[in-house]
Amino acid sequence: MATSAKIIDGKAIAATIRGELKVEVEAIKAKTGKVPGLAVVLATDRKDSETYTRMKKKMAEECGMKSFGHTLPSTVTQDELIEVVRKLNSDQDVHGILVQLPLPKHINEEEVLAEISIDKDVDGFHPLNIGRLSMKSRDPLFTPCTPKGCIELLKRTGVKIEGKRAVVLGRSNIVGLPAAMLLLHANATVTICHSRTEDLPGVVREADILIAAVGKAEIVKGSWVKPGAVVIDVGTNDAPDPTSKTGYRLVGDVAFDEVKQVASAITPVPGGVGPMTIAMLLSNTVDSAKRHFGIA
Amino acid sequence: MATSAKIIDGKAIAATIRGELKVEVEAIKAKTGKVPGLAVVLATDRKDSETYTRMKKKMAEECGMKSFGHTLPSTVTQDELIEVVRKLNSDQDVHGILVQLPLPKHINEEEVLAEISIDKDVDGFHPLNIGRLSMKSRDPLFTPCTPKGCIELLKRTGVKIEGKRAVVLGRSNIVGLPAAMLLLHANATVTICHSRTEDLPGVVREADILIAAVGKAEIVKGSWVKPGAVVIDVGTNDAPDPTSKTGYRLVGDVAFDEVKQVASAITPVPGGVGPMTIAMLLSNTVDSAKRHFGIA
Ligand SMILES: NC(=O)C1=CN([C@@H]2O[C@H](COP(=O)(O)OP(=O)(O)OC[C@H]3O[C@@H](n4cnc5c(N)ncnc54)[C@H](OP(=O)(O)O)[C@@H]3O)[C@@H](O)[C@H]2O)C=CC1
Ligand SMILES: NC(=O)C1=CN([C@@H]2O[C@H](COP(=O)(O)OP(=O)(O)OC[C@H]3O[C@@H](n4cnc5c(N)ncnc54)[C@H](OP(=O)(O)O)[C@@H]3O)[C@@H](O)[C@H]2O)C=CC1
Repeated sequence: MATSAKIIDGKAIAATIRGELKVEVEAIKAKTGKVPGLAVVLATDRKDSETYTRMKKKMAEECGMKSFGHTLPSTVTQDELIEVVRKLNSDQDVHGILVQLPLPKHINEEEVLAEISIDKDVDGFHPLNIGRLSMKSRDPLFTPCTPKGCIELLKRTGVKIEGKRAVVLGRSNIVGLPAAMLLLHANATVTICHSRTEDLPGVVREADILIAAVGKAEIVKGSWVKPGAVVIDVGTNDAPDPTSKTGYRLVGDVAFDEVKQVASAITPVPGGVGPMTIAMLLSNTVDSAKRHFGIA
Repeated sequence: MATSAKIIDGKAIAATIRGELKVEVEAIKAKTGKVPGLAVVLATDRKDSETYTRMKKKMAEECGMKSFGHTLPSTVTQDELIEVVRKLNSDQDVHGILVQLPLPKHINEEEVLAEISIDKDVDGFHPLNIGRLSMKSRDPLFTPCTPKGCIELLKRTGVKIEGKRAVVLGRSNIVGLPAAMLLLHANATVTICHSRTEDLPGVVREADILIAAVGKAEIVKGSWVKPGAVVIDVGTNDAPDPTSKTGYRLVGDVAFDEVKQVASAITPVPGGVGPMTIAMLLSNTVDSAKRHFGIA
C-alpha cells in the first residue's frame, strides 16, 4: 500500500510568518514612529526577476513596511548601479537593500554586492556574513533567505534535525552552501553533493533530511529517497507542458509524484520554499530595523 | 594477509616545502632587498604553546624569513594584547601576524583575532577569510594552515580528491570546517561529523578520504575504516604511557596500528599533519609578503 507524504505547505507557513512580522512592525512603529524599509534594486528586463521584485515589494507593504523600488535599465553601467547602492546605504529609512540577481552579464556581481553596507545586507550574501554563518559560535548579521526558509520549514513542521543525516544537493553561495551550514549548526550530520558527486542516488538515499537545490527538473527520483525522509525542494525549473497555456509548467528538482510516495514529508513546487524566501527577506529586514533603532 | 598502508611522511613533505619556500624567499630578497616577516605573539605559560611558537619562529628563520617574537605574561590584559597586535599591523616589516591560541580565559579570543589586519591574517581565521574560503569562486587571502596542510598532503601523495567521498570528523573553525570546505572545492562529496553525529563508525566507513580532527585519543578504530581509504589524522592527544619518561605519549585521533592494516595511506602522529601546519604558515607568510611587495 503506497503511503503518501505530508505536504509541507510553505505558502501557509509563510503567511503565518508574515502575520507575525506585521505585529512586529506595528510594535516598532509604536515605539519609534518609524517602520522598517526595504529597498529592491532591479537592473534587468528578465520577466521572472521583475515578478520576484514586485512580489517582494508587495509583501513588504502588506506587512506594514516601506518599500523602495529602483528599476534601472539592463543597460545600466556598473558605476551607476553602485551609485544607487551607495545612496541606499546612507538612506536612514532603508534598513535592507536587495539587488535582484542575476545581474546583466556586463556587471560584476561580486563587486556590486560588496558595495551593500554589511548592516543592510538582508540577502546575507556578504562573505563576512557567510563566514560568520559557517563558523561555530559566530552569528551572522543576516542569514541568506532561501536556506533560512528551508530550516524554518523544517522547524515549523516539527522535524528533528539534531543527529539526523542531512544531504544537500548543490553548493551555491546563495542556497546549497549556506543551507548545509545551517543544518550543521542545527547538529545534523551533513553531506554536500554537487555536479561532480559520484553515485548521487546512493548518497541521496542516506538522507533523513534532503535539501535539493541543483536547478535540474525532477532529477531526484522516488527510488533515490530513503523511506520516511523529509524532502525540501528548492528547485524552480521550467518543464515543457503542452497542456499549459504558456507551454510550460514550474517543477522542482524533485519528481514530486514519485517521491511523495516514499518521503514522510515534502515541499511542493510552487508553494513550498518560494514563499518562505520572501518571508525570510522580510524577517531579515525587520531584524535590521530593530538593530538600527536599538530595540531588541 | 594483512596489508599495510603507505605512511604519509608529513615531516619529509614539510621539509620539501620549506626548501621550496627558502628559494622563494631568496628570490624575494633579490628583487626587493627585503624578506618576509612573521610575528608570533605568545600570551600564555602553556608549555605546548611555548614549544609551538618557538618552532614557528625557528622554521621561519631557517627559510630565510625574519621572525618577530612577542612574549607576554599570561596576566596580560586584553587591551595590552590588542595594542601589540595594532603595532604589528602597522609595522611594514611584518607580513604575517600569528596570535598563538588558546588565549588565557580572561581574554576574548574573537575580539583579539578581529584586530589582526586582514592582509596579515596568515592563520586565516578572520570570518571574511572563512567566508571567502567557503564560497564558490571566491578565494580567501589566507587559508587556515592545518586544513591547508591536510590537502597539501593529499595532493603531494597523489591522492585523487574529485568525486571521492570525504568525511571530516570535527567542525571547529580552525580545522574541521575549513578542511571540509577545501575538500568540497576540490570536488569531493563531503560529510561533516561532530559530537552529535549518530553512528559515527557507520558514517566514517563511507569515507574514501577521512580527516580526523576531534581531539579524542585513538577514537577511530580499524573496523570503522573502509578498506583502501586514505586517513589524515590531525589529532594530537596525550595518552598515558607508563613506559615513557614523561608518563605519556602523543597519539592521534586514529588508532594507528589498527587502521594502518585497513587504510591505503595514513599520516602518523607525530610526523604527519603537525609539521605541515607550520610549513603552511610559512607559505602564507611568503604569499603575504609577495602581495605586499606587489610581486606575483
Ligand atoms: N525557491 C526559491 O526561492 C529559490 C529557488 N532557487 C532555485 O534553486 C535551484 C538552485 O539554485 P542555485 O543554487 O542558485 O543554482 P546554481 O546553479 O548556482 O547551483 C546549482 C548547484 O547544483 C549542482 N548541480 C548541478 N547539476 C547537478 C547534477 N546533475 N547533480 C548534482 N548536482 C548538480 C551544481 O554543482 P557544481 O557546483 O558542481 O556546479 C551547483 O552546486 C534553481 O532551480 C533555482 O531556480 C534559487 C534561489 C531561490
Ligand atoms: N597537528 C596540528 O597542527 C594541529 C592539531 N590539532 C589537533 O586536532 C584536534 C582537533 O582540534 P580542534 O579542531 O581545534 O578541536 P575542537 O575541540 O575545537 O573541535 C573538536 C571537534 O570534534 C568534535 N568531536 C568531539 N568529540 C567527538 C566525538 N566523540 N565524536 C565526534 N566528534 C567529536 C567536536 O564536535 P562539537 O562541534 O559537536 O563539539 C568538534 O567539532 C585536537 O587534537 C588538536 O590538538 C589542532 C590544530 C593543529
